[in-house]
Amino acid sequence: MAFEGKHVHAVIMAGGTGSSMLWPCSRKRNPKQFIDLFGEGTMIASAVSRVGERIPPEKTCVVTSLQGREMMERTLPGFPRENILVEPVARDTAPCIALATAFIKKRDPDAVTIILPADLLILDEEAFWKILEAGVGIAGDRKSIVTIGITPDRPEPAYGYIQTDRVRRADCLPPDSDISLYSVRAFAEKPDRTTAQEFLDSGDFYWNSGIFIWHLDVISRELERSMPDLHQDLQVIYDALGTEREREVLEDVYSWNHPVSIDSGVMERAENVCMLAGDFGWVDLGSWDEVVKMKGARTVPAGDPGVLVQIEAANNFVVKPQKKVVAVVGLDDIIVVDTQDALLVCRRGQAHNVRKVVDTLRREGFEDYL
Amino acid sequence: MAFEGKHVHAVIMAGGTGSSMLWPCSRKRNPKQFIDLFGEGTMIASAVSRVGERIPPEKTCVVTSLQGREMMERTLPGFPRENILVEPVARDTAPCIALATAFIKKRDPDAVTIILPADLLILDEEAFWKILEAGVGIAGDRKSIVTIGITPDRPEPAYGYIQTDRVRRADCLPPDSDISLYSVRAFAEKPDRTTAQEFLDSGDFYWNSGIFIWHLDVISRELERSMPDLHQDLQVIYDALGTEREREVLEDVYSWNHPVSIDSGVMERAENVCMLAGDFGWVDLGSWDEVVKMKGARTVPAGDPGVLVQIEAANNFVVKPQKKVVAVVGLDDIIVVDTQDALLVCRRGQAHNVRKVVDTLRREGFEDYL
Repeated sequence: MAFEGKHVHAVIMAGGTGSSMLWPCSRKRNPKQFIDLFGEGTMIASAVSRVGERIPPEKTCVVTSLQGREMMERTLPGFPRENILVEPVARDTAPCIALATAFIKKRDPDAVTIILPADLLILDEEAFWKILEAGVGIAGDRKSIVTIGITPDRPEPAYGYIQTDRVRRADCLPPDSDISLYSVRAFAEKPDRTTAQEFLDSGDFYWNSGIFIWHLDVISRELERSMPDLHQDLQVIYDALGTEREREVLEDVYSWNHPVSIDSGVMERAENVCMLAGDFGWVDLGSWDEVVKMKGARTVPAGDPGVLVQIEAANNFVVKPQKKVVAVVGLDDIIVVDTQDALLVCRRGQAHNVRKVVDTLRREGFEDYL
Repeated sequence: MAFEGKHVHAVIMAGGTGSSMLWPCSRKRNPKQFIDLFGEGTMIASAVSRVGERIPPEKTCVVTSLQGREMMERTLPGFPRENILVEPVARDTAPCIALATAFIKKRDPDAVTIILPADLLILDEEAFWKILEAGVGIAGDRKSIVTIGITPDRPEPAYGYIQTDRVRRADCLPPDSDISLYSVRAFAEKPDRTTAQEFLDSGDFYWNSGIFIWHLDVISRELERSMPDLHQDLQVIYDALGTEREREVLEDVYSWNHPVSIDSGVMERAENVCMLAGDFGWVDLGSWDEVVKMKGARTVPAGDPGVLVQIEAANNFVVKPQKKVVAVVGLDDIIVVDTQDALLVCRRGQAHNVRKVVDTLRREGFEDYL
């Protein structure tokens, strides 16, 4: 275990509400990190299992909702209950990180923390850990915030971007390392398509993976500088953690704090941010089109006694309930996602419009289906 | 009521097993005449209600399976139980007609009988009854078998055909009638596409509606001549009906008789067969494409709290369970038929291939889904 004996902790952020892009699987009450898209376990289970390969469970915490904790306790009974942190309401990533920081600080004030989104899909685990090891090494100097950028292969308007200064740094890394390290010049929120193309053409923009590595001292210092109110919350939470006031204090703090992302609240103003270029097969399952790209056209999960029948049909992607028969006739390149109470039939390449389905349902009052 | 006081009886043939063309709604254990495709009642309910407008229930019988009787008793409790005739097994139309003939003969030996398929869809009820009245008038002479032919508008290989002698007859009809009556030259089973085109081009071929009108004496005579074994069965059944031997005799007769259609068993050899051209909007819901043609693209049945959402999608036909949401994104001209345990997604114009879906399921052992 690479990080054994070191003060390395992991935070899995699983507080997000359902992504409307993966409707009807991902729902308001059943966010994508808790669904089993491929009959291979949930994303949160994959994340916990992936992290568990290098970091012991007692040094891993998950920040989630009350419902998320219930799902974890039901599906991952082996994970230490006390390391599941419950946010009373979701307030984006900055409050989530403040809570996790207070929790870890209480246990290990000298901790280097790896922040990971729960819905991370990684194709090359070896490369992933190699980058993370390098990041932990850099973050250990108590000076830098380490981010991971993904080399973009298309002008994607759905992601945030990290702009580097183009100068590949050789410091902080072993002399023979093939890892690319840059200083970060700026963070950019989701761009429009034209801007995304400009980012791609420039060569110095990377997709923001949402993974961060820092020493507790560093993130505390940056929070204090950029989000003093949230930093004060962190102190209040720190004092209350493990006492009988804990729940009350959390309820109180989350009743008035605002949803702010760590990118806009801290990163865009932070000093000494660097970026490791992470070429470990990062996949963001942001829409069904990306799921299909990732998984390819497929039939049914192993062990499902149901069946997919295709007659004069090919390249169709089907997600369906166990035991259900799905037949596609005379159609190619479609996505069929069938659940108990909602069915999506979508042309491949049109999955970005699934958001509009959810918008329509919300507008027309079909709350139960969101 | 046009036929009041006359010896006019109706037989509704509802013995067919599920049409694989309307899968997954029509199933082996839930044939199309017993399903409610449009939230407007089952076909058998429509048939009983249509016939009931002119013929009293005591002069109407339904020939069906044991399961069909159960469904009728559950959904049409007002229909006289004793007029539901149960065939132990389905043996196509000739045995079914022999059974009904024995039943009616027992009650009214002077009956003129109208034979109607249960899955009949009629757009112009007035015109329909006008043709049937003319047919009853002709059949009353105890000489002719009256058939109803539908003027074809396309070279349809899925139907049987009736060939006339092209000479419009003026006998047997009121002098001012605008109804067309022909002598029948031949019956033809489902043709291949080339032959169907020749039929259409010839101008003397009509689609066989499956509706027949005859006096009991006439069909008895024709059965005796062309199917002497079945005629003997008819006599045996006649003697047993209403006795305690009835069930046993039926079981016995149906254990050895063969499936034969009335067309091939009797009509092709019958004498003095005439045909009325029936232009009353006859629709055979033989496949989903025909259902769509009939119903047009539609959303959801009235009163369904579920919803159909279409984003960049049009002309889609959706059948779905109550309360389920269906969303179609980026697709036009598709047919979606969703049921509890099976889902069909089919391009319009390709519905004839639905049969292949059912064939595949049968071949692969998915009996429960047939």
